[in-house]
Formats: sequence, structure tokens, C-alpha cells
Amino acid sequence: MVILSDFPAETAGVFTQNEVKAAPVRLSQTYLKQATPKAIVANSGNANACTGTIGMDHARRMADTAAKALGIRRREVLVCSTGIIGLPMPIERIEAKMPELAGSLGEGAEANALAAEAIMTSDTRPKSEAIRVKIGGKTVTLGAIAKGAGMINPNMATMLCFVTTDAKISKAELRAATREATDLSFNRITIDGDMSTNDTVLVMANGQAGNRAITKGGPGGRAFREALTELMRRMAKKIVADGERVTKLVEVVVKGAYSSADAEKVARAVANSKLVKCSWNGNDPNWGRVIHAVGYSGARIREEMVDIYFDGRCAAKHGLVSDTPLEELQRVVSGPKFRVCIDLNLGSGEYNIYTADLSPEYVLFNREEYAVSKMKR
Amino acid sequence: MVILSDFPAETAGVFTQNEVKAAPVRLSQTYLKQATPKAIVANSGNANACTGTIGMDHARRMADTAAKALGIRRREVLVCSTGIIGLPMPIERIEAKMPELAGSLGEGAEANALAAEAIMTSDTRPKSEAIRVKIGGKTVTLGAIAKGAGMINPNMATMLCFVTTDAKISKAELRAATREATDLSFNRITIDGDMSTNDTVLVMANGQAGNRAITKGGPGGRAFREALTELMRRMAKKIVADGERVTKLVEVVVKGAYSSADAEKVARAVANSKLVKCSWNGNDPNWGRVIHAVGYSGARIREEMVDIYFDGRCAAKHGLVSDTPLEELQRVVSGPKFRVCIDLNLGSGEYNIYTADLSPEYVLFNREEYAVSKMKR
Repeated sequence: MVILSDFPAETAGVFTQNEVKAAPVRLSQTYLKQATPKAIVANSGNANACTGTIGMDHARRMADTAAKALGIRRREVLVCSTGIIGLPMPIERIEAKMPELAGSLGEGAEANALAAEAIMTSDTRPKSEAIRVKIGGKTVTLGAIAKGAGMINPNMATMLCFVTTDAKISKAELRAATREATDLSFNRITIDGDMSTNDTVLVMANGQAGNRAITKGGPGGRAFREALTELMRRMAKKIVADGERVTKLVEVVVKGAYSSADAEKVARAVANSKLVKCSWNGNDPNWGRVIHAVGYSGARIREEMVDIYFDGRCAAKHGLVSDTPLEELQRVVSGPKFRVCIDLNLGSGEYNIYTADLSPEYVLFNREEYAVSKMKR
Repeated sequence: MVILSDFPAETAGVFTQNEVKAAPVRLSQTYLKQATPKAIVANSGNANACTGTIGMDHARRMADTAAKALGIRRREVLVCSTGIIGLPMPIERIEAKMPELAGSLGEGAEANALAAEAIMTSDTRPKSEAIRVKIGGKTVTLGAIAKGAGMINPNMATMLCFVTTDAKISKAELRAATREATDLSFNRITIDGDMSTNDTVLVMANGQAGNRAITKGGPGGRAFREALTELMRRMAKKIVADGERVTKLVEVVVKGAYSSADAEKVARAVANSKLVKCSWNGNDPNWGRVIHAVGYSGARIREEMVDIYFDGRCAAKHGLVSDTPLEELQRVVSGPKFRVCIDLNLGSGEYNIYTADLSPEYVLFNREEYAVSKMKR
């Protein structure tokens, strides 16, 4: 997949925090410091991770071949890969196809859809969204494509999201807005608690909307941040809802914690508990498993203060079973989308996170992936 | 299940670190401070957790009824429960059966086997072991029964282990020995990363072996600690091997870390990674998933220094795929028991942990448990 901006675009990037970083991640981080990008090139199927110096060479060749085909400089190309770890990239196949790809770039919805499809791995559907916002009387457009599916966790795992916008914005403000929007979206989703070697969010702003440049604290800044956050939130939810063999999108909301850090600990413990996720898969409003995860989260809690709700229906009050009929709670958990709210009743700390159930099919899928990929080699 | 010592027994207890502690855990912690125990009473099926003041009342009634039937004081009885969280205990059923149970207590292998069976929940087989050791010319016996199955994680989850010994030992030394043995055994196993509300290890020493009392640093202390540790290690491995729908027992060994704390972080990240555990279930020597978990563990690592072995066969060297034939690695991972060794090549920090694979059957089982238990009510 190639994204090309006709003009150099201020670009902000957020990358995986895994200590094992794929070659394209390291290369893109370097290029971002050296030039103002014009393009992104991405492949799916091979992550080019744990591939050593050959991997770095392959990442550079990917930038080279795209730059050549697009008529721009190598350092103006950011590189992303997603797929299997530890196998060499079949870089010749990418090099062979690049002229054809560069020659067929389009615009608008159809091109967007093709790009979103090209970066899919185990995703079952392409993910794209767009938002328009008025800034200083000018219409600014933000578009995004993303892929996710497995290894989704705090700090964004095996996910790619590319946002393009025609907003005119300072580099510093674009970076701050990207960091904030990422914290409020991709860093609040989890599927399996794993974190990948390749996660990348890139936001390219090429300034063609004609608005006065957005700067920190200046006019339009809040509107842009809100639009970017909303866009990324929509993409984040799509990623969780399309997680590997996921059947439910669940928002875990924690309130009443001593601090927001405590609230986050509780939210992550519940959202990542295998036993909690199994219960949801079985349409089981098992608040006992929820409170046991609350208990080991590391947050300060008092068992006799904890209330647990499923879509507003009380399952446990003061740490004890409520009198809500079980059938009513089961109806909620049987749906494709619900919210679990945990009120610790201790303070004003809050946090929310999106997660999913854990299905037998997830395990089946993930124990077979490697064999499949070996065959495809 | 009832364990009775004819003599008051110095007893050391290690309890769950979950902030949500079941009523019997809180009661036993209190009683341990107030008296020298003579008995343990335990039930399976209901955890008596998240049951509030009624739960505390039920736990006390359980101690009461056992004390009465055994002819001892209430505070000489320690209480344990394991099973579902959040439902009231059917305490009347325990009270009704207690005289019969107290009247039928036996000794030796058969009684042991019955006791081990009585505390099972989703365990598929009873777990017991015994060790004899010479201390100051006297033969000291240590016996253990345990139950495990799900929610096994650092700091021992949904597991009970009761050790009885005729050793004569000071309370302080018994406590220290129990803490050390637990750290080297039950705190180094993990099945699903969850931690329960009811975990309890109790070691009762009634001093009838006739040895001179073991004290800190005194003769026989080392021999006793080693025997206790070995006994608990055997029980810990049995618990993992019989984890819910587990097909493989895997030891994760980390070497060459900057510190043992770093080694522990890596071992736990790998041992708890859903993706790693799925790959093992599929007989897949997927070192890429292992190194990705190493990368997000939070330990200081250098990707290009990491070596990964499956039962001594090199899968990755310096962070890159090795030339060991895939079939050879697959053969290891296809077995019921193997060791994954990760050498970070940075220092001398080491840690090891026992874990298991993650199977589709685990998910199926855990999404159905609640429904089953509702029916049984």
C-alpha cells in the first residue's frame, strides 16, 4: 500500500513501546527526524521484525523502491510492515510490483477502500473513517485507515493507523495532538494483552486546507484535537470489534477510584483477565470474576464499597450480589456490545477502556497461524 | 474435608494477596494469631468470597461445627473454601454432614487420597505427595495435599495446599521455611494469569517426630527447608500439569538478565502471553512470539543478544532465526513437557517459572462454569 501527498506533510508518529522493534519502525523513526515526509509504504504478511541487518536493508529497499517509483527522495518515505515475526521479507516481490502500484494511485473513497484492504492481516474487514471540521472558516478533512486484529493492547499492538489531513498545523502542535488522541483511543483498547513489535500511528498534515496554521493554544487547536481524537476513537473501536475471533465489544468503565492511575489499573486488570473474557464469551454476567480481577489489580480498593453494573443494571452492590434478576443481566451480556461499569466509591479517579471477549476460536486461530504462514512462504 | 492433629501444631500460613479476600481467608488469618491450631476444615464448590457479613458468619459456623464434632476449640480450626465467588454458602449442608465426617477420620494413604479428592474443584485428579527426611537422627515425615486447576498465577491463585509434618520446629523457623518454599514453588507457577480470592498454603507441624526443635540457623534447618521446598515444588508442578484443559507443562527459564528482577519480568511475560500459549497448544515452536513478549516485559533487553532454546535446541540466536530444522523444534513442542530457555546474554540474573499452554477447551470450559454452577445450586 502506498499513500502519497502531493506536498510535503508535517507528520507525527507514535510507535510501539516494545523493546523489540521491527526494522521499518526503526527506519521510520530515523527518517521522521531527517525529512518532511510525502509518502507511506506498507505491506502486510511479513512484519520484518527480528530480521537483523538484513531486515534493515530490506526496510531501506522498501523506501528506495517506493521513492523511485513516486519520484521523491528515499527519506520522504515512511515504511511500515505487519505480519509474521522472524522470517525474511520477500522484498523482491515488493520491488517488482512497486511501479505498477505507484502508477495506479487514485483518490477518494475507492482508493481509500483499496488502501484499507491492502494493510489487512487477520482483519475480517477493512477499516476507514473520515471527519470534516470547520477551522477558521475553512473546511478541514481528516481521513484514516487502520488494521488491527490480534496482539492489541496498551500502547497499541500489531496495529497500523494512517491519518491524512489537509489541515495546516505546526509540527509541535501536530505531535501534541497525535499523542493526546492516541492516549485517548488506541492506548485504551486491548484484545489479548500482547503488544507487538510493529505498531505505528502516523498523522500526515499537508496544509492544503487553507486554514491559518494551528499552533499550540491558538485558534482551531481544540477543534482539531477533538476531531483527531474522535476519528482515532472510531478506528480503535473498529479494531477491537474486529479482533481475532471476537464476538463482543465491551467498554470497561471504572469510576470512584482514589486516582485515575488506580482506575486505569482496575480497568486493565478486568479488560485483560482471561477468566472475565471467557465468561463474556459464554454470555455470563459473572461479576465474581470481575471483582476478583479488581482485587488483584494493584489499585487501592475496599471490597465492601465496590459496585458493578452491566449496561446500568446493578450486578453487585457493596461487593455483594444484587437482586437484579440474573436473566436481565444475561440479556445484556448476550448482546454484541455492552458496558461494564465498576464504581469503587472511594474517590474521583476514572478510566475507560475497550476490550472484547475471549473465544475458543481465538485460540484455534492463533495456534494455527504459524503453520499457515509457513505453508504460504 | 477435615485434617486433625492429635496435638496442637505450630502452623504457618501463606494467603492470597488479592485485595478481595474470601471470608475463610480472613477468619483463618485471625485464628492463626489467636491459637495453636489442631485442625483444618475445607470445602469445595463454593468459595465463600464476596459474601459480606453473612459469609463471615458462615465461615465461623464452619469452624464451630468442626470444632464441636472434633471436640476442640473453635479457634483451633482453620477454615478454607474454594469454588464459585459471590453466592452464599449452603452452610447447613456442611453442618449436617460434619458429625459423620469427624467420626470417619482415618490415617495413612487411603485417608490422604480421600482428603485430596475432597478438595478438588475442576481438578481432574487428586494431588498428594510425601517426603521423609532424617533430622538429628530422627525420621521426619512431610505430607501434602493440594488442589489447583484454574486461576493459577503469581502469588498462588485458587489453590489450596495443606502440608502436615511431625517435625518439631519453632514457629518463627516454620514461618520462614514456609515463605521460602512457597516463593520457590507456588509463586512460580502460572496457568491463566488470574489470582484468586481464596489461595491458602498451610503447614502444620505437631512436633511428634522426636527431633530436637529446629530453630533458625540451627541443625536440621536446611534439611527441613529443602524437604519442604521439594515437596511444594512437586505439588506446584502437579497443579500446572492438571491446569484447566492444559495439554503441556512448560518450564520457562530466563538467564543472563541484568538482574533477577528483570529475569522474573521476562519469565512472567512469556509464561502469561496468550499468543505464546496458543502457539504451544498448536505444537508450534514460534520463537517470534516469545521474543515479542520478551520485548514488552519491561526488562532491559537487547534484541540482538537474545538466544531462545526449546529443550536445548536453538530456535533463535542473537535475535535471529537459527538454522535448527523446524521439524526438530516442532518435535520438542509437540511433547507433553518441555523447557523454553531464554538467554538475554547481558548479566547473571536468572528466574524460572512453570506454565502451560492455552487451549480452546480452556475457554469452552470457563465460559460454561457459571451456568453449570447455577444449575447445581
